[in-house]
Amino acid sequence: MTNSPLANSISNLIERGEAIAAASLFANEHPADIAGALAVIARKNAHAAWGALELLPLAQQAETFGYLDHATQTSLAYAAPRAKLARIVTEMNADERADMFNELSDEQAEALLPALAQAEREDIRRLAAYEDGTAGAIMTSDYATLPERLSAAEAIEKLRLEAPDKETIYRAYVTDAERKLIGAVRLQDLILAPARAMVGDIMDRNTHAISVHDDQEHAARQIARYDVIALPVVDDQKRIVGIVTHDDAMDVIQEEATEDFHRVGTVSPLAANVRDAGIFLLYRARIVWLVVLVFGNIFSGAGIAAFEDTIAAYVALVFFLPLLIDSGGNAGSQSATLMVRALATGDVRMGDWGQMLGREALVAAMLGLSMAAAVSFIGVVRGGPEIALVVASAMVIIVIVGSLIGMTLPFVLTRFNLDPATASAPLVTSIADAAGVIIYFAIATAFLPLPG
Amino acid sequence: MTNSPLANSISNLIERGEAIAAASLFANEHPADIAGALAVIARKNAHAAWGALELLPLAQQAETFGYLDHATQTSLAYAAPRAKLARIVTEMNADERADMFNELSDEQAEALLPALAQAEREDIRRLAAYEDGTAGAIMTSDYATLPERLSAAEAIEKLRLEAPDKETIYRAYVTDAERKLIGAVRLQDLILAPARAMVGDIMDRNTHAISVHDDQEHAARQIARYDVIALPVVDDQKRIVGIVTHDDAMDVIQEEATEDFHRVGTVSPLAANVRDAGIFLLYRARIVWLVVLVFGNIFSGAGIAAFEDTIAAYVALVFFLPLLIDSGGNAGSQSATLMVRALATGDVRMGDWGQMLGREALVAAMLGLSMAAAVSFIGVVRGGPEIALVVASAMVIIVIVGSLIGMTLPFVLTRFNLDPATASAPLVTSIADAAGVIIYFAIATAFLPLPG
Repeated sequence: MTNSPLANSISNLIERGEAIAAASLFANEHPADIAGALAVIARKNAHAAWGALELLPLAQQAETFGYLDHATQTSLAYAAPRAKLARIVTEMNADERADMFNELSDEQAEALLPALAQAEREDIRRLAAYEDGTAGAIMTSDYATLPERLSAAEAIEKLRLEAPDKETIYRAYVTDAERKLIGAVRLQDLILAPARAMVGDIMDRNTHAISVHDDQEHAARQIARYDVIALPVVDDQKRIVGIVTHDDAMDVIQEEATEDFHRVGTVSPLAANVRDAGIFLLYRARIVWLVVLVFGNIFSGAGIAAFEDTIAAYVALVFFLPLLIDSGGNAGSQSATLMVRALATGDVRMGDWGQMLGREALVAAMLGLSMAAAVSFIGVVRGGPEIALVVASAMVIIVIVGSLIGMTLPFVLTRFNLDPATASAPLVTSIADAAGVIIYFAIATAFLPLPG
Repeated sequence: MTNSPLANSISNLIERGEAIAAASLFANEHPADIAGALAVIARKNAHAAWGALELLPLAQQAETFGYLDHATQTSLAYAAPRAKLARIVTEMNADERADMFNELSDEQAEALLPALAQAEREDIRRLAAYEDGTAGAIMTSDYATLPERLSAAEAIEKLRLEAPDKETIYRAYVTDAERKLIGAVRLQDLILAPARAMVGDIMDRNTHAISVHDDQEHAARQIARYDVIALPVVDDQKRIVGIVTHDDAMDVIQEEATEDFHRVGTVSPLAANVRDAGIFLLYRARIVWLVVLVFGNIFSGAGIAAFEDTIAAYVALVFFLPLLIDSGGNAGSQSATLMVRALATGDVRMGDWGQMLGREALVAAMLGLSMAAAVSFIGVVRGGPEIALVVASAMVIIVIVGSLIGMTLPFVLTRFNLDPATASAPLVTSIADAAGVIIYFAIATAFLPLPG
């Protein structure tokens, strides 16, 4: 998105005052692509981007605004006249609107709210009240409901009238007098049913619903599991309060994958995307773990220092040090990576730990023996058969120990309600390193005759 | 899924011959949940699982079968009488059916194909012909098309009749006489339009389409970008040949994230999920990189060996060795992680390399100085001010070099058309380790007076 030909053409035309030509360039573009171009323009000149957005019809302005990233939304919100911004905000999807308000400064939000109608103001306040990361925070209130006692034809007519304001009418939710969710009906089924069939008879009563307090990731995984377009969200009294749609679920799944990815790489979750993140934000996301790991490595250093006599007597041992301890760390990182991802996707659960451990021990033993075979040759060449024996047997034990540490750590973290992705490759490596140093030199000290 | 209460109840009832009670247990469950229970039963007894599946009405049998993982599908396919299996397969979604045939052994597929109708056989052959990982391989042929010259009312009637056989009728594709894609129309718009309006006038002509040859990840990202339920897939002549739906896109995005996750952890892509993968499969996915990295570490070992004189003169230096070289590796892993994920999600592109490099150098310098401050204290305590100076200055340079290696490697790999996720934490660590050893001891040798 750095070099957007669309953004360049548009901003050139706007600078030259050729608004009509600029507007015609937008005409055939998808709002997501227009938003991409506006983000590029806004980075240089928010007023020019606002000018470009104004070229669109109002409905498209609102849709495009919803596709903008939060940084661009905020900068355009500052550049725009308040009354015009209010019109766009009124037209936006309820969930995107609430998200945007969360990003605005308090002043900005307070300046904008009075320009909106009562209904929108309350909707924003209600949606913004849910805690970040919950189903309530990503749901939209633009859903369609139907009463049980309506014919299919009447139901279609009702949906038809409401369609422009709803995020989807492909699935409508059937509620009782107290707004409690009793079923869901697909538009497709209403069309297929005889015109006089009742909604209550057509609807699916086994509708999965999620709670407003559920984790957003849980909501997204339910949508993925049941292959649905949307899932209804209910409050503590089982009343429907919103829906989470498939496109938001996809965003959540991508965000959560990125967060886990970063965490495994010892980078704390970033509020912005990497390209736009500031230097200090990046520094802060990385420094904590780097310093923690430095102090973790002191244990390895201390381990080495404890065996200074052995090292002084057999300096050749030092040659194999990085190779051995890294192998333990690498095998452990592999195990941790497999477990972290499997726990995140739900492929593996806490109860599987015992079964996983037994299999891991077997796999690790096979890996260790293969690696020992690979290094014992180098051992003979560099240090003779005695050194080779020490190196090979240390390798087997180090790889097994490293793997078991790497496999167990994500489970231990989950057990203590911490994110399993904290079991990053570098953390596992540091722990496995310290263990490796001790195993290696302990074996060497035991097997090799020390002078004096 | 290991302990499924549903699976236990069902298999108990089937063992006791109480089929009706077992069937009633299924009645209120979602096919995805039934599939989960069947997978558990099938792991012990494929015939019992087949018996349970047969309790369902045919349409639900097919839907449940589509939700099963490939291993369970195959084991049930072996357990089932051929004619009954053929009926289920005929009812399945076209894309899930084609996927299943890809997993069956050649004999099994040859045994089953003659039991299917001509149309299904051809459909399977056509879908199976597309290369794995392309849009063609994940698309379904169950899409709805409309001619341009049809009224909205006629179009709704046509969709209504075809609905049971289509994966979605919420979006129908408008084609010309040569089956070329000319637009798309949402069911919602047909319902909102006057009954006599023509499809050609209602349809959206700017429909994004993807090619059968496009990468499946590209298809999935387009669906995520444009928030659509489905995207049409066209052949080289721009004729529509299938659609990729939002639920398949979600699966692809999850699979690709898992694959990148594993690759960054130096685990080769696994064909099965971690819980079900066999010991040898896991061994094979891990051993290659472990051995490669062992030989990579020989460079570090050789680096250390080259400075044996310095080490012998200042054994205290060894204490700081793991700490310094790991810090370079850790900082490099962080940079690599950030870049790998950003390149995968499209947040960063090849052209951004220069800009990223400049910023990375700044961030790395800040990180290096902070780390140097942290270790110089330990340096003074353990080795005196001279050692502290060597350790601190080595730290700054090592962290900067490690970070720049980690940041650059994913771009270099992309440049040579390799997967950037190959720039795994352990690979970056190995390279940064070797660099770190040389930097550390070179500085030490230059600054510290050698005896003799």
